[in-house]
Amino acid sequence: QKCALDDLMSSLNKSVASAVLEKVTLSCIDVPGSGFDVECPKGYKPTGCSCTNAGCYWDIRNDQTCHCFLVTMNRIGVIARCCKFAM
Amino acid sequence: QKCALDDLMSSLNKSVASAVLEKVTLSCIDVPGSGFDVECPKGYKPTGCSCTNAGCYWDIRNDQTCHCFLVTMNRIGVIARCCKFAM
Amino acid sequence: QKCALDDLMSSLNKSVASAVLEKVTLSCIDVPGSGFDVECPKGYKPTGCSCTNAGCYWDIRNDQTCHCFLVTMNRIGVIARCCKFAM
Repeated sequence: QKCALDDLMSSLNKSVASAVLEKVTLSCIDVPGSGFDVECPKGYKPTGCSCTNAGCYWDIRNDQTCHCFLVTMNRIGVIARCCKFAM
Repeated sequence: QKCALDDLMSSLNKSVASAVLEKVTLSCIDVPGSGFDVECPKGYKPTGCSCTNAGCYWDIRNDQTCHCFLVTMNRIGVIARCCKFAM
Repeated sequence: QKCALDDLMSSLNKSVASAVLEKVTLSCIDVPGSGFDVECPKGYKPTGCSCTNAGCYWDIRNDQTCHCFLVTMNRIGVIARCCKFAM
C-alpha cells in the first residue's frame, strides 16, 4: 500500500510540475514614474530599473521600489520592470 | 467522503508545490544586439536591459523587446536579460 | 477506467497549479559589491544589474555574476538584482 501511494505521488508530482509549467508564466509590466522613485504594484517584484537620465545608478527599496540616484541634474523619471507569476 | 478528498487534495497541493519548486527554476539568458533594440526569444520575458553606451536609458516594448534611447552618439548595442520558467 | 484517471489528473493539475501559484512567489534580493563584479548567491539568478557610476554598461557572466564595464574612472560599485522561486 505504502509504495503504491509513493508511486502515485511521484508520477503526480512530475505530471503536475509540467502542467504547472505549461499554465504558470512569468508576467511582467513596465511602471513609469517621474522623479526618483517608482513602486511596483502589489504582487509584483522589481527585477530591474531604468533611470531616464544620463546617470543610471539605481537600487531597490523595500523590495518593491526602484530608486534612481541623482547623478546629473537632467532628471526625467524612472521605469520599474515589475514581474510576478501568473496563470 | 467529501472531507477525505479535501485532505487528499490539500496534502497533494503541498507536496506537489514543493515538488514543483524543486523541479522548476528561473532560467535566464543574455541576448546581445547592436543598434537600439533587441528581442527576447519566444517563451522568455525581458527582466532588465543594458545599453552599451554612456547613456543607459531603456524601456521594454511589447513586453518582449529591450529598447535603448539614444542619449549620446557613442551607440554600441543593447543586451536584454531574458528569463522564463524551466524544468 | 482510463478516462476517469485522465479527468482526475486534469482537475488535480488545475487545482494544484493554482495552489502552487498561491504558495510559490518570486523572491528577490539586492546584492551590493564594490569594484566591477558581484555574484548572486546560490539558487538565485541575476535579473538585472546596476553599475554605481555614471557609465552603466553591464552584462552577466556565467549566468550568476553582474559585471560592470569601466566607462569612466569614478567607479563606486555594482548592485545585482537576484531572484528565485520561494514558498
